[in-house]
Amino acid sequence: MNKSPLRIGIAGLGTVGAGTIKLLESQAALISLRCGRDIKVTAVSARDKAKDRGVDLSGYKWHDDPVGLASDDEVDVITELIGGEDGAAKVLVEAAIANGKHVVTANKALIAHHGTELAKSAEAANVALAFEAAVAGGIPIVKAMKEGLAANNISRVFGILNGTCNYILSEMRETGKDFEIVLKEAQDLGYAEADPAFDVDGVDAAHKLAILTSLAFGCEVNFKDVYIEGIRHVSPLDIEFADDLGYRIKLLGIARKTDQGIEQRVHPCMVPLDAPIAHIEDVFNAVVADGDFVDTTMYEGRGAGEGPTASAVVADIVDIASDRRSNTFSIPADKLSKMKVAPISSHVGSYYVRFMVADKPGVFAAIASALHDNNVSMEAILQRGRSESEAVPVVLTTHEADEASMIATLEAIEKNEAVVEPPRLIRIESF
Amino acid sequence: MNKSPLRIGIAGLGTVGAGTIKLLESQAALISLRCGRDIKVTAVSARDKAKDRGVDLSGYKWHDDPVGLASDDEVDVITELIGGEDGAAKVLVEAAIANGKHVVTANKALIAHHGTELAKSAEAANVALAFEAAVAGGIPIVKAMKEGLAANNISRVFGILNGTCNYILSEMRETGKDFEIVLKEAQDLGYAEADPAFDVDGVDAAHKLAILTSLAFGCEVNFKDVYIEGIRHVSPLDIEFADDLGYRIKLLGIARKTDQGIEQRVHPCMVPLDAPIAHIEDVFNAVVADGDFVDTTMYEGRGAGEGPTASAVVADIVDIASDRRSNTFSIPADKLSKMKVAPISSHVGSYYVRFMVADKPGVFAAIASALHDNNVSMEAILQRGRSESEAVPVVLTTHEADEASMIATLEAIEKNEAVVEPPRLIRIESF
Repeated sequence: MNKSPLRIGIAGLGTVGAGTIKLLESQAALISLRCGRDIKVTAVSARDKAKDRGVDLSGYKWHDDPVGLASDDEVDVITELIGGEDGAAKVLVEAAIANGKHVVTANKALIAHHGTELAKSAEAANVALAFEAAVAGGIPIVKAMKEGLAANNISRVFGILNGTCNYILSEMRETGKDFEIVLKEAQDLGYAEADPAFDVDGVDAAHKLAILTSLAFGCEVNFKDVYIEGIRHVSPLDIEFADDLGYRIKLLGIARKTDQGIEQRVHPCMVPLDAPIAHIEDVFNAVVADGDFVDTTMYEGRGAGEGPTASAVVADIVDIASDRRSNTFSIPADKLSKMKVAPISSHVGSYYVRFMVADKPGVFAAIASALHDNNVSMEAILQRGRSESEAVPVVLTTHEADEASMIATLEAIEKNEAVVEPPRLIRIESF
Repeated sequence: MNKSPLRIGIAGLGTVGAGTIKLLESQAALISLRCGRDIKVTAVSARDKAKDRGVDLSGYKWHDDPVGLASDDEVDVITELIGGEDGAAKVLVEAAIANGKHVVTANKALIAHHGTELAKSAEAANVALAFEAAVAGGIPIVKAMKEGLAANNISRVFGILNGTCNYILSEMRETGKDFEIVLKEAQDLGYAEADPAFDVDGVDAAHKLAILTSLAFGCEVNFKDVYIEGIRHVSPLDIEFADDLGYRIKLLGIARKTDQGIEQRVHPCMVPLDAPIAHIEDVFNAVVADGDFVDTTMYEGRGAGEGPTASAVVADIVDIASDRRSNTFSIPADKLSKMKVAPISSHVGSYYVRFMVADKPGVFAAIASALHDNNVSMEAILQRGRSESEAVPVVLTTHEADEASMIATLEAIEKNEAVVEPPRLIRIESF
């Protein structure tokens, strides 16, 4: 071993920051053996110096201002674990790149919003900008997309990208409880934030999807055009019907090349039980990538938490220590194309729809005629229960249809007075 | 782009060799964009120059003797796709390393038998010896183990490593047919070789497991100490009982750190249905790696075939073209430790056992006393059917026991005259 140690400055000492320090300390010998040089934390920055984080910070230089790390001569790699799409995280990353320091970050919001420009700056400055931890936590999916599958054109990448939502949906299925109750339990367990919107409304998954899309298709990161639907409207009733029909409901982020352009969408999906991703439960994440030579590959693991996220952060640091470099995305940043966006209205797929219907004659005829008028072909229809006084659920699944026709169909059916609440639509994903 | 093209010599033009040429031709622009230089096949070698392989070889220099590639001045990387643990493949790889050329190989037998010495030579010569395609086909698992999970101590790695066996077991379960019939069908479909022994007796899976073990634990490759049991004895009856008990039968290769040393074993396993790997069906492969920080991660995809294997071969070539280097295994070859081998007799786990029992009084008492005498604790027992004339199956599952006690238990029970054929034992893997 004749290389000098690689010196790390860590900004942000929350769960992941403290976990990264613990990992680098406890695995120092192993990592040094693997990369042929030592990796040493030399400086840190966080809001509150006094807070007990379960790690001894006395050996590290303290910066009150994280941006100070970017000009610290004893730091080679800035590890940005502050979070947030703007503010201190962005200022720090820009300053680090400007000062010729490598950057490792777990910040999906930052990369989803500013990934293209940051990648261009980093490549112009010949420094690494690595973000394995930003997508699917501990799963080494960024490396797989950039390196492992480098020989492939990717046609689709999708996954369970938010552990909180997957936990809630798994738990709802197992217990039959409502969303709000399971959410509360998840919050008590620490699986969901006090303000759960970022997770349950699909924004976090959309950040990760936008990054995966660029890795897969070589286009600029385009978060703003991701179609996003969260899981608040998923009901135990739909979960039960899914079961009857041979599906699991999962919140998927899906990016796909179509004739209309690139689709990016995050929404609950009906996933057939014979697809392995249907069986990824609890807080686990999974990503599926379809390549033209490799065919379908899937990657599964924990998408969050101290250990898994630190594992991904340190994998990036180990790459830098080992002089393994790759493009920030899978092709050089200045070659990333503008995305041709396929709007959700042009999406073509199968659908599950549930109507709540009062038991009045003529409603099935109305459904049939709306389908016919909009050229949507029904695959199956089922009704559960029968009541003269209360509305009962009627579920139909369709063959492939475009989303615009589907929406028109629902609008027509909803006008029937026997349909007592807005229909629930869940897209069926085929594999 | 200012680097000269990377020049590839391909030895062996079977399915994978021809697929690699097709891939490099059809993806030339993409790959060149990803690595910043062109990758060009310059020379090839195979047994029969005249054979039609669906690729035009006229632009490549032909070598009758593959070893000629190793001294061809217009070749930077030898891609060894001949196969076989010795013979031409080994001579070529040794010559290539001696001549300072990088080596990419899909040859699991070669690496399983000679991986340690070849890695030492390659590292001493400062050339790459890359074998992503040797384990689980298109799944980028070697890269995941060496780089993606570099921050982790691995405690266990296991997987479905042979697509032929997984296809046969999936098909047996779906159709209820016997092993021999499904094997014949698999041969007709091209999923199994005319001589299926290598696959169905577990040797191929054991080659891959031996490589994974070294990647996971930093020890020398030790194929000879892998405990191997194939799938010939798996019966439709056991598959049915597995279903009743909430399991799928899978041929797994498992390497695990235990107090006794490192276990390496390939055998049919009862896998609980809530483990995602239970749902990997058909010809697909999957590998699970448990790390101390990342926790459990799983990787799934096609383990064989022209496209997936070529994808892995070219991923290695792309790494070389991009100057991304890593240790041959996860630590330098001269630091690989001698393996302390845990023998199968010291294995501790749960077991499924099926006896065929004539309906005579006292047999349950004999089973109970054999279990008691050997300190094996029963979890459940079930009997299917009842007949005065024919033997009926009795199945029991145990709590954790060591293998030596389990074998002694079976020997004792087998002595009972009501037990009419040798008991079937299938290990239950816990997750």
